[in-house]
This record gives sequence, C-alpha cells and structure tokens, in this order.
Amino acid sequence: MNEDITIRKAEMKDLPAIYGLVHELAVYEKAPEALKIGIDDYLKAFKEGLIDSFVAEMSGNIVGITVFYMTFSTWRGKCLYLEDFYVQPSYRKYGIGQKLFDAYLDEAKKRGALQTKWQVLDWNEPALNFYKKNNAVIEKEWWNGKIFFD
Amino acid sequence: MNEDITIRKAEMKDLPAIYGLVHELAVYEKAPEALKIGIDDYLKAFKEGLIDSFVAEMSGNIVGITVFYMTFSTWRGKCLYLEDFYVQPSYRKYGIGQKLFDAYLDEAKKRGALQTKWQVLDWNEPALNFYKKNNAVIEKEWWNGKIFFD
Repeated sequence: MNEDITIRKAEMKDLPAIYGLVHELAVYEKAPEALKIGIDDYLKAFKEGLIDSFVAEMSGNIVGITVFYMTFSTWRGKCLYLEDFYVQPSYRKYGIGQKLFDAYLDEAKKRGALQTKWQVLDWNEPALNFYKKNNAVIEKEWWNGKIFFD
Repeated sequence: MNEDITIRKAEMKDLPAIYGLVHELAVYEKAPEALKIGIDDYLKAFKEGLIDSFVAEMSGNIVGITVFYMTFSTWRGKCLYLEDFYVQPSYRKYGIGQKLFDAYLDEAKKRGALQTKWQVLDWNEPALNFYKKNNAVIEKEWWNGKIFFD
C-alpha cells in the first residue's frame, strides 16, 4: 500500500479536493456549519500566498492534506502553523498521516521556522495520541478569543 | 489623561520598546524563560512583514502595544491574529487597552479580515473580563500542539 502513496506540494488544481477534505474534517470535528467560505476564497488565498499545502495522493485521488502558513511567535520566532491536517478514515493505518506530518515538519525546518504549532480538540483522542507519539508539547491552559465580522 | 495618549502604527525604531513590553508580558504570564529570541529577530520579522504593531505613546514613552499578523482560517477566511497585547500596569484604567484593541479591530476590517483571533491564559481574569466586555467568543475546547526545533 505504502508505495502507492505520493506526498507532494499542492497546486491550484488541487484546491477543490482540499476544500472537500476540510469539509469532511469540519464534520468530524462536529462543526460543519463553521465552514463559512467557499472554494473561490481558497483559490484567492492560495494565489496570495496566505496558505500552502501538501497532499497525499493515491491512484490519482487526494486522500489526505495538510494546510499551513508562516506565523511569528514573539517568544520563539518563525512558526509554521498547521491550520488543517486530515486523512480520510478509510485510508488511515497506512502511515499516510505520519508521512504528511513529516513533510510538514521538514517544510518548517527548510523555511527556517523554529517551531510548529496547531490546535487539537480536547476530545480528539486519536489525534492526541498521534501528536504524543510525535513528542509534541500539548498546552491546555490557553483559550482562544475570537471576534467575527459577519 | 486620555488626550495625552497617541495610538499609532509602530516603526522600526519602536521595536526595542516593543520587545521590552513583550518581556514584561511574559513575566506577567509566568513564563519569562519562554522568551528565547532577541531584538534582532524582531527587526528581521518586521522588515519581512511577518509582524505588524500598534503602540500607545504617552509623553514620548511607549506604554502599550499590540503585535499582529494576517493568517487564514480555512473555515472563515482572512484572520488578523493578535500575537501580543499589553499595557503597562501603572497606565491601566485610562482606556489605553480599549483604544489599542479598537485600533486592532479597525485594522482587521481595513485589511478585509473576516475575523480576529488571539489566545488568553485560563487564569487571566482581567484579560478575560476585557474580552467578554468586547463581546468576544471564548473557546475552551481547543488545545495547542507544538514541536520546537531547538
């Protein structure tokens, strides 16, 4: 199975598939109604360099994604932020998630980031186990504040 | 008091003062050892456009700051992320924090952001009260994951 998987940088043509997987992830995270924007917004953001992505491809199908962008921690410097990370359920257990995550970490190092950061829901045990296996620090004491303009 | 306060965009020359206030904030957040980088890293990040900032100035002294940058939520689009927000204790209760926060929200709207986001420590009651007064959504169910490369 593993030899059929290609991990590669996303191109414009992949954005509809990426959007589809972000939607699947939002459903898994019990918040499908939170996805307020459309594919056009993704195309625009990708063109402007606001987001970047790796995809996992099998037999021409995109079955997993990471979406990320550079931020800056005033404590630790350049940080590649992982906005989305998803592998379709039927394609799990083949190491695709690990390959995608490794590619993301490599990309962070290549770009001179000193850290990576993402968020995970407190009830998402499979994800938490994956991150613990990867020796990630999990911080539970920070809450998110948000103001929406719609 | 209020008429003596100027809220303005930060310039390169302000970065040492901004760095000093980020350090004060790290001490307040009980994590001074977490500040690993120096003023040079701030100068470089500011030049590269990785961070932007507003400062509150009184009689030539910078007594408050916001530090922010544009990110992208795959659920809601462009997001101006507030990395740091601090007013020196002896200058609080004059509305400087609200002026800084309003300038940040205005900047987000001007740049076409559809939301703003930041993080707050779960024990930081004064900050939480401030954000509630500003009708912010506070999310408690997301944990941070991090991997450091040092």
